Order: sequence, then structure tokens, then C-alpha cells
Amino acid sequence: MEGTFYAPLKDRKHPDEPNVETLSPEGAIQPTGTWNLGTRAGDSIYVAGMRGIDPETNALVKNEKDRIRQAFLNMKLIAESEGASLQDATRIVVYVTDMFRYRPLVNEIQQELWGDGPYPPRTIVEVDRLNQDDIFEVEGTFHAPQKGSNK
Amino acid sequence: MEGTFYAPLKDRKHPDEPNVETLSPEGAIQPTGTWNLGTRAGDSIYVAGMRGIDPETNALVKNEKDRIRQAFLNMKLIAESEGASLQDATRIVVYVTDMFRYRPLVNEIQQELWGDGPYPPRTIVEVDRLNQDDIFEVEGTFHAPQKGSNK
Amino acid sequence: MEGTFYAPLKDRKHPDEPNVETLSPEGAIQPTGTWNLGTRAGDSIYVAGMRGIDPETNALVKNEKDRIRQAFLNMKLIAESEGASLQDATRIVVYVTDMFRYRPLVNEIQQELWGDGPYPPRTIVEVDRLNQDDIFEVEGTFHAPQKGSNK
Repeated sequence: MEGTFYAPLKDRKHPDEPNVETLSPEGAIQPTGTWNLGTRAGDSIYVAGMRGIDPETNALVKNEKDRIRQAFLNMKLIAESEGASLQDATRIVVYVTDMFRYRPLVNEIQQELWGDGPYPPRTIVEVDRLNQDDIFEVEGTFHAPQKGSNK
Repeated sequence: MEGTFYAPLKDRKHPDEPNVETLSPEGAIQPTGTWNLGTRAGDSIYVAGMRGIDPETNALVKNEKDRIRQAFLNMKLIAESEGASLQDATRIVVYVTDMFRYRPLVNEIQQELWGDGPYPPRTIVEVDRLNQDDIFEVEGTFHAPQKGSNK
Repeated sequence: MEGTFYAPLKDRKHPDEPNVETLSPEGAIQPTGTWNLGTRAGDSIYVAGMRGIDPETNALVKNEKDRIRQAFLNMKLIAESEGASLQDATRIVVYVTDMFRYRPLVNEIQQELWGDGPYPPRTIVEVDRLNQDDIFEVEGTFHAPQKGSNK
């Protein structure tokens, strides 16, 4: 395999290990229910829909723009814990509760966070309601070779 | 490749074989239109949005909680036909038509089905309408090495 | 690796190359904001939510059915630029703003484009609003071995 950058499924010791790794990096928000923050499977990292919860207080950030930024930062922290940058996002899905009001803010925040890009493919839809009557949720998928893989 | 658990794309006999395998396991609901139940591609299993249709009668289950459970079971059957358990879910996306009414039921059913977990990352949104004016739909992605792979 | 059809992560010259490749094939619509049309990561191709924008004029196609077809064609062009056909779709997610009005049109168009299939797994939901007050958006994921891979 020398010379390629392929990452095997896992550096598993034996076949009984799970196929999917659950992520709970330090500094992240705390999932409170029947869900987790993210998973890694092979070279793919799947992050749960993130909202603008402050990991220090576990409360929603007050200002709308700050809250949207916080949601992206929550996603970023989980991705980075697995070696993936924002530029390693393969796709994001954005859910807002008001397209005309929040889409421009999403664009501004993405410009701030991604800089010169490249920006990932995006799907953005306005839905009826999010949990906690929130205004914004982002679901990101990332790609990064596994740590310890034989690249 | 000895000692790794990597599953190659496919044990294909020749390059004309399709990249994506369509799934139609025994006992599953019958897709009635221009869609299929699921696909496998490499080590990933993609299940279509599942609703609470009883595979025996092809009708929606009556009781709300039972219907939500049935939707998860329909997803589970397809995943298991490819060797993936609920713990091998990399992500689920949950669509409900009433967040306050159905989210608690979703939590209860997940607790019942996943037990001690780990629970997958979840995105949950309230949408305007589902097909057949249904109340709940779940879309799951899974990860499991291919059968017959050289692990 | 002889005899398998595995495609390595990338034929990268050195490890500093990005994990995710941004797609911008000729003839495609032009992304106007903080997003791109698609990505390839490993053997997976992720296409952004596509709407019925005419790539020649960058304007929405007028007729409803034609517009839905155009959205699918926009997705198809991006997938095909990476060697994936519609039959290589692992999943599509369809967002409409009127389930009863547009779902039958989606079925007709899919029949037209996919022919005898196989059709991919589909999730279809009615949302409140799409960008530009559009009526239909489709998000596709595809699977095709990388060009230049050692198959």
C-alpha cells in the first residue's frame, strides 16, 4: 500500500470491534438525549445537526448572528477532533426557520469561517420548527483519513 | 492486506458491474414508486426515508407510537440485511410534523430499540408534510464491511 | 491489489493535498454564494441541493415540470463529470413546497430519466420554503471509483 493514502476501515485489534466510532470530544456541547455528537466510519465523519448552544453554559446563544456562528463552531470542533477542517466538509445541510431573514446571515458567517474557501456543497431549506424553537441548524459531513492509518 | 479489516469496493468479477447495489431484503415493505429501499456502496448502507408502514398489510400502523416504532423497525430490517445493527448507524435524520408532540415519542422508541446505545448522531426537524400526510419519517445511514470482503 | 476494484483515497503526490475535491464541471450552473456544486471524497460524490436553474441563462426554468427536470439534469451533469450515472446514486433527498402537487411530477420525471432503474432510495418531504421561493430541490449522493485509481 506504500505510496497511497488509503486509510483502512480501522486499526482494529479484532473483528468484534464496532464498525462505527462514536465521537465525544472535549469542549463540545453535551448531548442530553438519545443521540450523540458524531461518528466516524472509515474516512467519513458524520456530525449531528448542530445548533447555537454555548458549550460552557449549555444555553442557546442570545444574538441571532452569534447563535448561527456558534452552531458552525460546534460542528467545527467535532470535525477537528477527528482531523477534519471546515475545508474537509463534503456537504452541509442547513435548516432555517426563516429563509429571507437567516440565509444572508448564514452566508456572512460562512464567509467569516471558511475565508477563501473552498466552500462545501450546501442544501438550505426553511422548515417549520427546530428543537427548542431554534432558528438554525447545520448538519455536516466530513472526510479525513483515519489517525494511525497506513498512509 | 492481511491484518486489516478493509473491505474492497466489491468482489466484482469484471468492471461492468454496477458501483451501487440496490437492496430489497425479504420481509421489507414494498416500494410502490420510483424509489428503492436502500443501497450499499462500498462499506456504506443508505436506507430510504422509512415510515410506519406494516410490511404485512402495506398499510400505516394506527397508533402514533407504534407507527414510529414500525418506521424504525423497517429501517432496521434493511440495515440488518446488510450486516449492520442499529449501533452501526452513522447518522439518522428524523422528520416529524409536530416537534413538541412527536419528539418525546421518538426518544422513547429510540431508548427501547437502542438500549444502552451508543445512539447515532441525529438531526430532527419539523416539516410541513410527509407523504400520505404521515407524522414521522426516519432516514438512516449505516456502515458495515461488505460480506465476502477480504478482512 | 490486483483483481479488486478498490479506489484509493487519492493518487496524491504528497500528504498536504486536500482530502476533499471541489467539483466545478463545465456546463454546470454557477454557484453564486458561499457554496459549491459538489465534492468528491474517496469514491463518494456529494452534490449540493440542485434547483431548476437553466445553466445557459442562470434563471429558473418557467414551467413546473420542466423546472423539476432541469434540477435533476443539473445534478446529473455534476455526477457524470465524476463518472457516476443516475444509477450510481446511493440516495436522493427531495424537498418540495407542495407534496400533493409536485410529488407526481417528481415521479414522472424520475421515470423519464432513470428509465427501468434501478431507482435510488428517496426521502421526500414538504418544507416551508426554498431559496428564491422555488418549488423543488434535490440533493444527490453518488458512488463511483476514482479516475486513475488502481482498479
